[in-house]
Amino acid sequence: MTADPVQPEQLPADGPGPGRPSRRGFLRGGATFLGGAIGGAAATFGGTAAWGATRPSSSSSEAPDQAGRATVAFRGPRQPGVGTTPQAFATLLALDLVDGSDRESLVRLMRIWTDDAERLMAGRPGLADTEPELAAVPARLTVTVGYGPGVFAAADLPGRAPAWLRPLPSFGVDRLADAWSGGDLLLQVCADDPVTVSHAARVLVKQARTFARPRWLQRGFRNSPGTVAPGTTWRNPMGQVDGTGNIDPAAEPHLIWHPDGSAGWLAGGTSAVVRRIAMDLDRWDEVDRAGRENTIGRRLSDGSPLTGRHEHDTPDLEAKGPNGFGVIDAAAHIRRSRTQDPHERFLRRPYGYDDGPGDTGLVFVSYQADIDRQFLPVQRRLDELDLLNEWTTPIGSAIFAVPPGVGPGEYLGQALLEG
Amino acid sequence: MTADPVQPEQLPADGPGPGRPSRRGFLRGGATFLGGAIGGAAATFGGTAAWGATRPSSSSSEAPDQAGRATVAFRGPRQPGVGTTPQAFATLLALDLVDGSDRESLVRLMRIWTDDAERLMAGRPGLADTEPELAAVPARLTVTVGYGPGVFAAADLPGRAPAWLRPLPSFGVDRLADAWSGGDLLLQVCADDPVTVSHAARVLVKQARTFARPRWLQRGFRNSPGTVAPGTTWRNPMGQVDGTGNIDPAAEPHLIWHPDGSAGWLAGGTSAVVRRIAMDLDRWDEVDRAGRENTIGRRLSDGSPLTGRHEHDTPDLEAKGPNGFGVIDAAAHIRRSRTQDPHERFLRRPYGYDDGPGDTGLVFVSYQADIDRQFLPVQRRLDELDLLNEWTTPIGSAIFAVPPGVGPGEYLGQALLEG
Ligand code: HEM
Ligand code: HEM
Repeated sequence: MTADPVQPEQLPADGPGPGRPSRRGFLRGGATFLGGAIGGAAATFGGTAAWGATRPSSSSSEAPDQAGRATVAFRGPRQPGVGTTPQAFATLLALDLVDGSDRESLVRLMRIWTDDAERLMAGRPGLADTEPELAAVPARLTVTVGYGPGVFAAADLPGRAPAWLRPLPSFGVDRLADAWSGGDLLLQVCADDPVTVSHAARVLVKQARTFARPRWLQRGFRNSPGTVAPGTTWRNPMGQVDGTGNIDPAAEPHLIWHPDGSAGWLAGGTSAVVRRIAMDLDRWDEVDRAGRENTIGRRLSDGSPLTGRHEHDTPDLEAKGPNGFGVIDAAAHIRRSRTQDPHERFLRRPYGYDDGPGDTGLVFVSYQADIDRQFLPVQRRLDELDLLNEWTTPIGSAIFAVPPGVGPGEYLGQALLEG
Repeated sequence: MTADPVQPEQLPADGPGPGRPSRRGFLRGGATFLGGAIGGAAATFGGTAAWGATRPSSSSSEAPDQAGRATVAFRGPRQPGVGTTPQAFATLLALDLVDGSDRESLVRLMRIWTDDAERLMAGRPGLADTEPELAAVPARLTVTVGYGPGVFAAADLPGRAPAWLRPLPSFGVDRLADAWSGGDLLLQVCADDPVTVSHAARVLVKQARTFARPRWLQRGFRNSPGTVAPGTTWRNPMGQVDGTGNIDPAAEPHLIWHPDGSAGWLAGGTSAVVRRIAMDLDRWDEVDRAGRENTIGRRLSDGSPLTGRHEHDTPDLEAKGPNGFGVIDAAAHIRRSRTQDPHERFLRRPYGYDDGPGDTGLVFVSYQADIDRQFLPVQRRLDELDLLNEWTTPIGSAIFAVPPGVGPGEYLGQALLEG
């Protein structure tokens, strides 16, 4: 259900044509590249070949290579960028609606974003794209749109806002800055190429100019395409294997999506929690390895639980050490966040950020059908007790309702705005 | 001469071993990937496979894939990161020496950086690396070190500073901020993976803590590895094909490097100019395509000169249009920057930056044997007249002497500090 249809070989339909014949057989179901079979040639890094200066080449930037050509479908029952295997780069942007916004102006903005998101995700320029060539490398671009409480106020549809759509309660661990919190609209722009993300985000912000102004922007990253083995779980800036205990969006779609047949405009939609969580890496590094592993309950080397041998072994929260205490600490992050309650699970889709020395952390993003039922109990438990809190501090917080995907002929949010 | 020796299959020697057998035959002399030959399998993007949650995997982040395994040699007659084909990501950091620094403390810092740069570039953890697993994906990591005027003052070697090692004269176009200018030391950290760059920069800054404090940090990007065709010239955030007229470092090494046999500690070294140049993209986009192409003298579609048909055709600066004016404008960027004078050419190695809406531009980096002779005349001409100046503004400026490469048993800057 949640697996995005992907067209690996889909070339820009009305964009500039590629300058060289495309290679066939590309597949990246987690970073498998097929190239020409050049086995024996010497490496030419740093040599002449790739410096463009001397080697006449018929191609220019508009000839995307394998990882650049892959596209994710924009239209479908769900918005892309949620169940999509995380791309290497993410820009999350919150925007505030200008004064005087109403349902009509929202419809206009949604029509524009629908059109531009669909084009850009296909590797085609936005409608008023002044840098059309920068659109030619889709690299699994996804655009995901969310609505903050302000949308329902502006649209004069206060009754249609889900009950959970209000700022999270403040937690003891929070040190929130206004500059990183709230927002009427969310744009999550992800792709495997930072040039693509930068261009797409700019097109969407520019086109929204008369309707909404950027409030905050967070840029996150994981590993580049093709640099780590397929299926490898990402490591966050603390060096931890991050994502092992995550849910599989294809296996448990009900945790994320409001069922298609359910009542109301949110059928097929979800919710997004975006928290900017600073890491005090300098102090974290002073802790010895045992202490750092105890904090999470998993090993740094391979992410395996302290009670197991392999990354995906199930943590044994009952296991006791020789001293009678739990092998996994009573306050370890995975003991506190893990739950048997099927209603308290959700999809994490975080990225690392690094804005300079001392300014590093997680752009924590989670998707769940219901923030109150699924996310809040876990966040409350972590706020009460979690060894990790010693080194991590939420400095931004925002929540959004994510409307369903866009069917043929439809525009983003149509079920809400016309329903 | 300048081609960096690259060991594509070199695996971390004392780092964690990879969890899966390595694939052979990797070559990326401009982005050629060899993967397993999986032709028919369906794409699995967004599906279960790569979400790690459900698929037990023996590998963890310490198993770099092809583009992640590639290394550039640290030791050699030249520092890496100059003649090296530009990697996808760059962090440029300036540091200021703490009060009381002297030659001895500089030697200690250089020994530490030598050791850590060599390890990290080989895919091994730094000596006191608290996140050793983050070092396992070298992804063509290079570390390049430069000396600002402050190094020569601290080392009490004022007479050894090259004559060109002083802040650039101020130009009419400049709107320099102190926060983006100057610095005693330069660290240029580049790799094809942003996680690698972030980790390496942090290790180097941390290890320098008692010797030097960060002054500014600039993060730049180009396309991810494998997303554009091999040999493609990069496009900057203005959408222009950027680098066509660049020199080839392997073909004209004398433009960059002080000859090995030359007198003085700089033999085998070079100089770096780092300028942060803001782009007014919103105003740039208001100009029509013809106007934007006229500004550079090249076409946006493929970077070809207005007098030619292909990207690498030589611009004809004499060609006249029907009205008697030059086809390439008298104030076009390539007319003003291009020169027949062999002494006025240098290597450009710029990256784009995008720190949010309205905060985009170029981390302009150039390498040349002599700033005064090669860079300054061109920068002066551009300052006097260049259509591009309407939309670009230098907001930071710094210059550095880049010591020669590090031979076996040596440390960075040894010829200066012990000479
Ligand atoms: C900087 C902040 C955080 C860091 C560095 C972090 C790191 C980790 C790590 C390393 C794991 C173990 C591997 C894995 O299953 O992914 C983990 C698991 C988990 N974390 Fe976090 N986390 C952070 C914040 C949060 C927050 C804010 C929440 C939710 C409120 C959360 C919820 C979870 C959950 C549900 C699991 C899986 C537990 C399981 O079922 O095994 N984490 N986290
Ligand atoms: C934001 C600022 C700048 C932008 C957007 C920019 C863009 C470009 C572009 C698109 C080209 C044509 C393609 C190429 O040969 O690379 C070019 C060429 C060139 N630029 Fe710039 N440039 C900038 C600043 C500078 C500066 C500060 C210098 C040196 C002081 C410089 C020196 C050159 C040179 C030497 C060439 C090659 C001319 C030739 O021989 O054909 N540029 N630049």
